[in-house]
Amino acid sequence: MDLNPTQFYKAMAPRLTVLVTTVDREGSINAAPFSFVSPVSMDPPLVMVSSGHGKDTLKNVRDTREFVLNIPTEEILNEICKCGGKFPHGINELDEAGLTAEDSATVKPPRVKECIAWFECGLEAEHEAGDHVMLIGRVLKAEVKDGLVKDGNLDVGKAKTIQHIGGTEFAVPERVVNAE
Amino acid sequence: MDLNPTQFYKAMAPRLTVLVTTVDREGSINAAPFSFVSPVSMDPPLVMVSSGHGKDTLKNVRDTREFVLNIPTEEILNEICKCGGKFPHGINELDEAGLTAEDSATVKPPRVKECIAWFECGLEAEHEAGDHVMLIGRVLKAEVKDGLVKDGNLDVGKAKTIQHIGGTEFAVPERVVNAE
Repeated sequence: MDLNPTQFYKAMAPRLTVLVTTVDREGSINAAPFSFVSPVSMDPPLVMVSSGHGKDTLKNVRDTREFVLNIPTEEILNEICKCGGKFPHGINELDEAGLTAEDSATVKPPRVKECIAWFECGLEAEHEAGDHVMLIGRVLKAEVKDGLVKDGNLDVGKAKTIQHIGGTEFAVPERVVNAE
Repeated sequence: MDLNPTQFYKAMAPRLTVLVTTVDREGSINAAPFSFVSPVSMDPPLVMVSSGHGKDTLKNVRDTREFVLNIPTEEILNEICKCGGKFPHGINELDEAGLTAEDSATVKPPRVKECIAWFECGLEAEHEAGDHVMLIGRVLKAEVKDGLVKDGNLDVGKAKTIQHIGGTEFAVPERVVNAE
């Protein structure tokens, strides 16, 4: 069936979902989920987050040039969706959702304790992209919860990361297959 | 555990995997799998594919400004990995893998019949990103195989799309969960 091209992303699913934490100039914390995200370079390590215009994440990253990309799991699915709700600027979504901020090693935005991987980023570039803006972050520090890496890769069956399908619906990728 | 930042993408997994088809100036077909991909804008509909330097996909897109993003499934996992192998320029990976090229509606690069969704794209922009180049495509036509859309979203349980973990290892996201 034909899709309206503006709906194409619904068929480009499920999409890895991350929680991005930022701070404003005064140090107030913001946290918001994103699924238009991808690594874009290995060396230097660069990650892309595409943010809608008008989002606090975008404003904070432009103002302070730092963000943390946190990888959440099924266990905190409701909390992640709560962070995606509309709160006035200055409200700490982590507090509202009952998640825990922990100090990062290299940047001001905090890590989210309940996540399983954390990428501390400095803003490298930004590019306009239609109704979004692509934020390109350089990964300054990368950490994964102990016991979730197997043979150098994420142990997907254990990690139970969440991937956005649409609305409040997510997939949990668990079954692993190997090509010949 | 700390990860070398250049290995961060291994913890940003599993990643939606697509097969990108292009043609060179003479019309020779190329097909290659990518997992550094994401939608980046809804309206206009824009998609990002990050390609390593030196890849035929990058050369072809720069030369002809068109590509098709095909969404593959578990059923053709081996064929997709075969397309990721090293072939001399001018070799049609689809033939080598036993996949079928079908005419696209709006662009010269073909669709891959065995896939379940197809996004025909015109090159909108490109941005250097470390050891990769981000290709931004405008989706000119989007189509999904009949029976795979439910309530406007991809029916993940039926679609059995593949997501890259590392090497020849992929996840098949099937279990769907809903936030409250």
